[in-house]
Amino acid sequence: MKKDFIDTNDFTRQELIDMIELSLAIKKAISKGYYPPLMKDMTLGMIFQQSSTRTRVSFETAMSQMGGHAQYLGPGMIQLGGHETIGDTGKVLSRLTDIVMARVISHETVIELAKSCSIPVLNGMSDYNHPTQEIGDMCTVFENIPRGKKLSDIKIVFVGDGTQVCASLGFITTKLGMHFVHYGPQGHQLNEHHKAILSENCKLSGASFEITDDRNSVRDADFIYTDVWYGLYENEMPKEERVQVFHDYQVNRDLMQLGSLGCKFMHCLPATRGEDVTDEVADSDASLCWEQAGNRLTAMRGLLVYFTRFREYASDIQIAAAKEELDSFICRRIIK
Amino acid sequence: MKKDFIDTNDFTRQELIDMIELSLAIKKAISKGYYPPLMKDMTLGMIFQQSSTRTRVSFETAMSQMGGHAQYLGPGMIQLGGHETIGDTGKVLSRLTDIVMARVISHETVIELAKSCSIPVLNGMSDYNHPTQEIGDMCTVFENIPRGKKLSDIKIVFVGDGTQVCASLGFITTKLGMHFVHYGPQGHQLNEHHKAILSENCKLSGASFEITDDRNSVRDADFIYTDVWYGLYENEMPKEERVQVFHDYQVNRDLMQLGSLGCKFMHCLPATRGEDVTDEVADSDASLCWEQAGNRLTAMRGLLVYFTRFREYASDIQIAAAKEELDSFICRRIIK
Amino acid sequence: MKKDFIDTNDFTRQELIDMIELSLAIKKAISKGYYPPLMKDMTLGMIFQQSSTRTRVSFETAMSQMGGHAQYLGPGMIQLGGHETIGDTGKVLSRLTDIVMARVISHETVIELAKSCSIPVLNGMSDYNHPTQEIGDMCTVFENIPRGKKLSDIKIVFVGDGTQVCASLGFITTKLGMHFVHYGPQGHQLNEHHKAILSENCKLSGASFEITDDRNSVRDADFIYTDVWYGLYENEMPKEERVQVFHDYQVNRDLMQLGSLGCKFMHCLPATRGEDVTDEVADSDASLCWEQAGNRLTAMRGLLVYFTRFREYASDIQIAAAKEELDSFICRRIIK
Repeated sequence: MKKDFIDTNDFTRQELIDMIELSLAIKKAISKGYYPPLMKDMTLGMIFQQSSTRTRVSFETAMSQMGGHAQYLGPGMIQLGGHETIGDTGKVLSRLTDIVMARVISHETVIELAKSCSIPVLNGMSDYNHPTQEIGDMCTVFENIPRGKKLSDIKIVFVGDGTQVCASLGFITTKLGMHFVHYGPQGHQLNEHHKAILSENCKLSGASFEITDDRNSVRDADFIYTDVWYGLYENEMPKEERVQVFHDYQVNRDLMQLGSLGCKFMHCLPATRGEDVTDEVADSDASLCWEQAGNRLTAMRGLLVYFTRFREYASDIQIAAAKEELDSFICRRIIK
Repeated sequence: MKKDFIDTNDFTRQELIDMIELSLAIKKAISKGYYPPLMKDMTLGMIFQQSSTRTRVSFETAMSQMGGHAQYLGPGMIQLGGHETIGDTGKVLSRLTDIVMARVISHETVIELAKSCSIPVLNGMSDYNHPTQEIGDMCTVFENIPRGKKLSDIKIVFVGDGTQVCASLGFITTKLGMHFVHYGPQGHQLNEHHKAILSENCKLSGASFEITDDRNSVRDADFIYTDVWYGLYENEMPKEERVQVFHDYQVNRDLMQLGSLGCKFMHCLPATRGEDVTDEVADSDASLCWEQAGNRLTAMRGLLVYFTRFREYASDIQIAAAKEELDSFICRRIIK
Repeated sequence: MKKDFIDTNDFTRQELIDMIELSLAIKKAISKGYYPPLMKDMTLGMIFQQSSTRTRVSFETAMSQMGGHAQYLGPGMIQLGGHETIGDTGKVLSRLTDIVMARVISHETVIELAKSCSIPVLNGMSDYNHPTQEIGDMCTVFENIPRGKKLSDIKIVFVGDGTQVCASLGFITTKLGMHFVHYGPQGHQLNEHHKAILSENCKLSGASFEITDDRNSVRDADFIYTDVWYGLYENEMPKEERVQVFHDYQVNRDLMQLGSLGCKFMHCLPATRGEDVTDEVADSDASLCWEQAGNRLTAMRGLLVYFTRFREYASDIQIAAAKEELDSFICRRIIK
């Protein structure tokens, strides 16, 4: 039975920790020079309805480092909901590839794709959430747990617009038992739907969360996280308007000083320097944003292995017999 | 001497059967876990003058499954007949890749490309024909021969517009000795040029063919095949017009019931559900269209191996000597 | 300490000869059937701000022939100087790939990218120069040195517009000690900046150079090289205007006969047949332009190996230990 990776809320806390720790274990192996051939002979179909740097490059690198191959199916390169229904494209890709990832404009698209595919589908970001970012960010948090603290001691504050990255950070941190804060202006805060999920997560994990425009909520943060202000997709805000709405929410030296001693800065990137974050913060020693970018690759490797781990392997004898049979056919019929 | 795969009519019946059976033999090996490295170290240049899902993905997967690599050269990505003549691009690609496939707008383009290339060129569909589809479809037919029948007993009916897929189906079925029918409205039937080829093929193979708008021609079909109605490329028919022309040619339950008991449905995809085929038929047990999509990959693997099978292989000793020489150069001059 | 390949003038004569001879050594190994896995497990990020045939295909083939993988990041596929600064994209790619090449509109872009990357950056052509073309062309010259001559005896004449390919040919030939001539119309000749570099190179190598509109300068050339007349990028000259400016500079039978006996024709391609070169010359035995195209691949292989040669390799024991540790983690935690 195939499983998809559409939303981290579909998984238990332990399953998510397994994904994170698997990602970190593969990272460690590669850092020591062992590139595990865990995706050997496999093909990843990468559907992008929008351009992407980090998600695309990290998936493609992950596949080749582990012996597989990723195909870039960018905007306009294949039919998806045009001359062909999403369902039909999903059925076809299930016959021609081994696993699919999709960056979609509408969350419904990736859900429909997953339903029609008989192979695993990974959500490479939608207008609703960004779960591969979640796993990568948790790799970064696990590597940077403040001295003497446990997961349940950590406070992580997302500052600014309630984007899908904000929602995603809320989902995974409350799953794992941390204290999550969204500090953002009214009208741009996580909504009732998000709150219901966060509450549910907290009940199970012992986490807590807060959604507020009170600057005091940033105090003692272990991690301060932000994203761009311009919104996503078609509804990009004009610069003047967004600066007016968000100017109090810039991550700068003053805001960082509200955090705990040694507070770290996080950003999913791209950043609009001078808007959502100052150069001083982004380029400081407190900044984890480049490590986060590197851990996109860490997460992709882990997720690819995790969601294809149930495939069956042929025995060496079975493979040798198949080779013998094919070689003999080719000699007899084709090379002559 | 290199050979190209531009038109199945350039090959004998036996050569085509070899291509089909080679494709099926590789499919069998892979299904048993043996991925034959028959394209190792080789590069396929994939030229697409138009977007494509099945042809592109199946060629790219085929190359990586067999140890090679495919490069996607999509619309606008390289010069082809713009600042550079097709002939010059062909000469250049012959130096930089090992085999080329091209999906072209005009059949002349792939012919000219093949002439200028010193490496094999495979036709990935033109406005005239679709030969890789033919090989894939014959794999599907071979896997689904009706119980107790031989190739020469099979009746296959193409319903609807006389597209290049229709022509191609006529070419390969008459080559192989089947009974082929094009059941389509006047003005959209295969033309005199096609008829001449079909006649020639039938003379050699014992096949027969019929081109008609008589619904009775569908009776006792073993396979009913259709394609979209909207035509191809620039001349796409408006929906209203095409429905008026083709509404009697929809493949639905009624039409399928004219076929033999156990009659199968085929479609090259994409399908326009509700126009050329009903959901009921496309999603029924009689539908082979998803198997056909999977057999695009089957065919690509076979064709890639078939058309590169004449390359010379170095002996192990020769390779070891070349390795020794290069390693020694690098140690002495580059690593220092 | 990483090194970039932005401009051949940043390297000594001996270093450039090493790059050329390494390229030729790998070419020889492959011609004997040994594909050296020198880029194994490595990923090349290929940034193209403009479309390209030769540079793109040869880099991608080079990576796969040597066991690595190249990612095509074409126009519009990633952010570069749009929502994200070039510096930030460079930092991110340094975490997700092993080496980067960029074809850029403005030379400043590749310089800025190299500054921000912690991995090697190779210039795949800018509006200023085309250094990978230089190494490929020198491979072709080394393979075609006139009988009885040494490098310092060679006279090479670039005919026509002072494009970045013209400048690049001047750079590398004067570095290596040849006699370089730019024969082109006033207003389209190499400028004072170029002359200063050529002079500097000549002082060190004993080469000489001449920039002139005097047709006599072509006499006794061993190699006559040309490029298109239409200029590059946004400033493409209309056909009528360029023919008026350059008509005396067409490489035809008459011009070739001014060269030495056995004078060879070179062109970086694409050519505009009938403008910058006649069919007769381009397709003659004197033409090296197809060999040059093939040696783009030769150069890319050499440059990729040269600029990644300092990476550390893990010992077999270290790799085995890392494998053991990862396999054990996966068995215990993931496969269960």
